[in-house]
Amino acid sequence: MSTLKESFVSIEPLDSALLEKAQARLDSLTKPRGSLGRLEEFARRVVAITGNPRPEIKRKVIFTFASDHGVADEGVSAFPKEVTAQMVFNFLSGGAGINVLARHVGAEVKVVDIGVDYDFSDAEGLINRKVMRGSANIRKGPAMSKEKALECIEAGISLAEEYATDGALFGTGDMGIANTTPSSAIAAAFTGKDPEEVTGRGTGVDDGTFEHKVRVIRDALRVNDPDPADPLDVLAKVGGPEIGAIAGLLIGAASRRIPVVVDGFISTAGALVACELEPRVKEYIFASHNSVERGHRAMLERIGHEPILDLKLRLGEGTGAVLAMTLIEAGVKIYNEMSTFGEAGVSEEKD
Amino acid sequence: MSTLKESFVSIEPLDSALLEKAQARLDSLTKPRGSLGRLEEFARRVVAITGNPRPEIKRKVIFTFASDHGVADEGVSAFPKEVTAQMVFNFLSGGAGINVLARHVGAEVKVVDIGVDYDFSDAEGLINRKVMRGSANIRKGPAMSKEKALECIEAGISLAEEYATDGALFGTGDMGIANTTPSSAIAAAFTGKDPEEVTGRGTGVDDGTFEHKVRVIRDALRVNDPDPADPLDVLAKVGGPEIGAIAGLLIGAASRRIPVVVDGFISTAGALVACELEPRVKEYIFASHNSVERGHRAMLERIGHEPILDLKLRLGEGTGAVLAMTLIEAGVKIYNEMSTFGEAGVSEEKD
Repeated sequence: MSTLKESFVSIEPLDSALLEKAQARLDSLTKPRGSLGRLEEFARRVVAITGNPRPEIKRKVIFTFASDHGVADEGVSAFPKEVTAQMVFNFLSGGAGINVLARHVGAEVKVVDIGVDYDFSDAEGLINRKVMRGSANIRKGPAMSKEKALECIEAGISLAEEYATDGALFGTGDMGIANTTPSSAIAAAFTGKDPEEVTGRGTGVDDGTFEHKVRVIRDALRVNDPDPADPLDVLAKVGGPEIGAIAGLLIGAASRRIPVVVDGFISTAGALVACELEPRVKEYIFASHNSVERGHRAMLERIGHEPILDLKLRLGEGTGAVLAMTLIEAGVKIYNEMSTFGEAGVSEEKD
Repeated sequence: MSTLKESFVSIEPLDSALLEKAQARLDSLTKPRGSLGRLEEFARRVVAITGNPRPEIKRKVIFTFASDHGVADEGVSAFPKEVTAQMVFNFLSGGAGINVLARHVGAEVKVVDIGVDYDFSDAEGLINRKVMRGSANIRKGPAMSKEKALECIEAGISLAEEYATDGALFGTGDMGIANTTPSSAIAAAFTGKDPEEVTGRGTGVDDGTFEHKVRVIRDALRVNDPDPADPLDVLAKVGGPEIGAIAGLLIGAASRRIPVVVDGFISTAGALVACELEPRVKEYIFASHNSVERGHRAMLERIGHEPILDLKLRLGEGTGAVLAMTLIEAGVKIYNEMSTFGEAGVSEEKD
């Protein structure tokens, strides 16, 4: 497995000549130039990311990272903490939202235990990368040590390396009761915005719980004082295991030239950590959707990505990512399968 | 085949009890209530439209209506007029954008000649519903007679009836060089907006041609003086054959309780004609995407629909519709295939 530093060294900036070459092919297809909008952008970027002038999406894999969070003890979620482990079993038996949507688009779901506070022993189908049994309560101190934060990132890198095959498209997902709380804390730490501006209602808390959640995040930032110039410090102090693993998956994917689709709020917190660690990661990722969760937009703006979908989702698990993956695949098929003006005998645009 | 009046009589308002029942099932599934946003809306609406408490999407059919337009003689398009017929052959041989995207999502493409100025004789796979060989130039007089406009609508109704099977989901599409011009004229006629506010660049005309196009539309409205209180008059005077057929398809689908996804600018002009003729049609349609074409938003607002996608598309053919169809299908699968809290043994929300 590569270390974080080795991965950074091997992330290359995209070759703009490849983007241009891809656009030239897109312009030769039987449609007005640029008329397939973002589908053309997806195709162009997949060409440049993979370095393959005729890329194909051969395998779509969603990694759903599960973890518990000590801050759940503060009553910041509408659901009890045991739901994290219960949902892991739901993922494994194929009954969760992410399973349904992945089947719909032909993607595989890999469920990864990175930090659930439950002993799954050898639950069939579960990928065991457990770094801890739940993070510590960020209202009272750091979520984890810097060493553990690095372990979470490296778990993500190793998974990316394991699944990095020709034609792979990755997606990220999360499951962890209370994990919008550390995600908002990360957003506030990096963007400098007030916690209230980047905190949403998560699974759906009421007004009183929302105000309480903002207070908890404010306390977490005050108690821990994370240093935004040191992204590992932010992750360790106010983050969470799945957020670190997602950051690692993106870093590992970028170093292997695999495009990755980032899900919503929690995944974007992971993407933000990755991009603050190594800005070139940005060029390898796609922002899947515009989450209902407040604060998502601020993180996307900092990363510099425009989301693909806006379906008012706030579930996580990778549900937004998997839907965006099928649109990216659609763009690649347009690029490969449409006839050119010459092939179809269609007259070209008057210039 | 049903006449227009018969179809209107048989369009029932949706049963709100069905919407509520569908939402109750959605709320029993293993996710925070409402967290799948618009996917839940799609499922709910398909339940109410079909009247089936457990609907399935068994067949997805895109109807791509092709026609020529006399106003092409005014030089309002970046492409020569013969491209309409050339693209019909491209559709039939499977090389166009709509073919690629339909294959990707498992939809069928039905190519319908409603008014192309070309003799296809018995081109294989083409559905012949030719009402005329190109409309007349709307800058100089009406596009067609009211009788012909009605024929176009009734062709759409008859196709809807022919393909209306249990579990069908329809989509609309168009092909017709210069057809953004009549679509903008329709938008201006019904919304009362100035032609400049509802005119875009179509296939990609330059500044000079754009200003000319606005003048042509202004002239068409002045010369024909369409009556917005009489939608058939608007369609006949400043519309086009495929726009009428699309309106008819929506009316026929609504009368048979088949959900229909409306593509971009031209299809929305057809949807506007249908909704002005019979407002209940609105409840049976989905707006697929937000077209780059100016004036699209104004029509959607008048109809009262929020588009599903915003991918900066401006191709037509049904390309936006077919992508939205797979998202609607995703919503229906969520509704049918996700586990309930009870089935999965997951703890519910604290109230």
